Amino acid sequence: MHILVTGAGGFLGRLLIDTLLAQTDATITALDVVPLSFASERVTAFVGDLSDAAWLAATLAQVAPVEQAYHLAAVVSGSAEADFDLGYRANLEGTRNILEALRRQSASGGPVARLVFTSSVAVFGGNLPEVVTDGTVAAPQGSYGVQKLMSEYLIGDYTRKGYVDGRAVRLPTVSVRPGKPNAALSSFASGIIREPLQGKVSELPVTRDTAVWILSPDSAVAALRHTLTLDHEVFHGGVYGPAVNLPGLCVSVSQMLDSLLEVGGPEALALVKDVPDPRVTKLVATWPTKFAPERALALGYRADNDFTQIVRTFAARL
Amino acid sequence: MHILVTGAGGFLGRLLIDTLLAQTDATITALDVVPLSFASERVTAFVGDLSDAAWLAATLAQVAPVEQAYHLAAVVSGSAEADFDLGYRANLEGTRNILEALRRQSASGGPVARLVFTSSVAVFGGNLPEVVTDGTVAAPQGSYGVQKLMSEYLIGDYTRKGYVDGRAVRLPTVSVRPGKPNAALSSFASGIIREPLQGKVSELPVTRDTAVWILSPDSAVAALRHTLTLDHEVFHGGVYGPAVNLPGLCVSVSQMLDSLLEVGGPEALALVKDVPDPRVTKLVATWPTKFAPERALALGYRADNDFTQIVRTFAARL
Ligand SMILES: NC(=O)c1ccc[n+]([C@@H]2O[C@H](COP(=O)([O-])OP(=O)(O)OC[C@H]3O[C@@H](n4cnc5c(N)ncnc54)[C@H](O)[C@@H]3O)[C@@H](O)[C@H]2O)c1
Ligand SMILES: NC(=O)c1ccc[n+]([C@@H]2O[C@H](COP(=O)([O-])OP(=O)(O)OC[C@H]3O[C@@H](n4cnc5c(N)ncnc54)[C@H](O)[C@@H]3O)[C@@H](O)[C@H]2O)c1
Repeated sequence: MHILVTGAGGFLGRLLIDTLLAQTDATITALDVVPLSFASERVTAFVGDLSDAAWLAATLAQVAPVEQAYHLAAVVSGSAEADFDLGYRANLEGTRNILEALRRQSASGGPVARLVFTSSVAVFGGNLPEVVTDGTVAAPQGSYGVQKLMSEYLIGDYTRKGYVDGRAVRLPTVSVRPGKPNAALSSFASGIIREPLQGKVSELPVTRDTAVWILSPDSAVAALRHTLTLDHEVFHGGVYGPAVNLPGLCVSVSQMLDSLLEVGGPEALALVKDVPDPRVTKLVATWPTKFAPERALALGYRADNDFTQIVRTFAARL
Repeated sequence: MHILVTGAGGFLGRLLIDTLLAQTDATITALDVVPLSFASERVTAFVGDLSDAAWLAATLAQVAPVEQAYHLAAVVSGSAEADFDLGYRANLEGTRNILEALRRQSASGGPVARLVFTSSVAVFGGNLPEVVTDGTVAAPQGSYGVQKLMSEYLIGDYTRKGYVDGRAVRLPTVSVRPGKPNAALSSFASGIIREPLQGKVSELPVTRDTAVWILSPDSAVAALRHTLTLDHEVFHGGVYGPAVNLPGLCVSVSQMLDSLLEVGGPEALALVKDVPDPRVTKLVATWPTKFAPERALALGYRADNDFTQIVRTFAARL
């Protein structure tokens, strides 16, 4: 099995590749704009920009045909909002270029690659019902969400045509994310756990009653892998289009801080400082916080049981 | 007032321009890939391809700033389905290029153009409820519908950013369309009236119980013009995203043939031949036939009252 991973230098990309190396015999082609290093001969890494179609074509020409693809490369919500052109280049053109490359592969007699695309709950916004269902219309109120939604439909069309077998899933906010704070507007949902558990101050830009739809890193990687195990008919059910809303946990900032207190004690909790940021609050307020993800549950996707357990797992790996 | 009309050589483009010339003092810049001729000095016509961003920029640099834009240029459903790349170039890149040109105009101190985009009920497909509402999720099962839907969201994002004030409306099938049959999969919905009323045979590719959501040409032009009279806040209501479903008439082929009999007599009716075409039937069957267009009605859009009246109007202009 030869697997392509884009965004391989990112948070989920690295965790995914580590998991694939540990649990499969696959060889992996890893792409990212940032420098990559993997400690396995089974990974071949290339550094370049997916929005450069010529680079992508030349790169894929050097490797074995792609049987499975995890398309994770993206600029995050904060960056897409701050730099309109960068967002469309990375998040829409990048997706288009991957699809075109895989289309050329199948058109020239190669395999029809099975692809998973990481969309986001940020496709939802505007006047949302209290609980988002599979029948809720997406109205993203940020460029990142628009780019993700456009990519979902584009992937649906390439799939309907038989050029690729693409499946899009809408990831909840993945927490606790290790490493440094990033430019995602939801960065606080990891920051208020990650920094205090390491003795550092973390600023909370939203109010404590703000709720977030959360999935742990391990469950996110499991969901992506599960997506590629499903038969074509089972996943698509004859209808090509919007992505599957993944299950998650609806957790308020207060509940997250309770978990922090339980795992890290009062010293950790004291490191969280409320520093309201209207720009973050405004966009995060348009994101949905609670789903009834029936289609996903029927397809066998599973959420985490408990946020405190997620925090314990994170703390144990520090 | 200076108005830009793309797709100006097409059916709705020509009817719109005639109406604007008759009812306003506006000057008009008319764009299309096909040769254009308008009998008024108030229209300046340019022939070129909207997917050519450089041509578009050079063209718009020669004319006054655009205050209003009717973006009608598109390849129709049959062509977009037959030629995947052409469809994305014309229907998605073309839209993107228009938006970019208008963004540059406002960025360089010019007006923020008010734009109307002709989306389509073909954005709907898959497992549809009997009556489509404003809360029905779009899942287009054809490339044309995907391109229209992606354009809607793209326009929403440019509008949210303040680059342009774009409004997308989903047109029902416009009938009766004069002229020749075209490559739209819904072409029969005009053909079975137009050809028989002129003594010609018309082939019906779908069954007679097939229903179509219809708007007359005059009502379509009125809807486009109405769209640009609405205040920003009224149209958008603070939420940027999917288009407005326009009101229409749900008419079955049988009912259309009753109207044909009434207006054209039994000789006309006898010219309709049933020639089932599975390719057309399959895609048309995924289109919705009945809407509860509440948002549109609240915004003051109106449908026709009666299909026989539409046929009479068409016949009177022959
Ligand atoms: N982490 C979350 O909470 C979350 C939630 C919803 C969706 N997602 C999506 O999941 C995917 C992975 O998320 P993550 O948290 O690992 O993000 P990340 O930012 O850690 O990783 C994304 C990687 O993509 C790379 N990249 C960006 N533009 C590129 C380009 N043009 N060419 C090549 N590489 C490029 C970046 O360099 C980065 O390494 C992304 O698509 C993200 O939008 C993540
Ligand atoms: N007529 C309908 O029933 C109906 C229904 C729903 C939506 N619409 C939409 O309304 C709009 C107008 O419809 P119409 O019936 O007048 O279509 P039409 O085919 O008669 O006219 C479209 C025009 O766009 C031009 N065009 C196509 N690609 C172009 C490009 N790359 N650059 C410049 N010009 C280009 C064509 O040459 C044509 O003259 C279209 O966007 C169509 O998709 C129409």
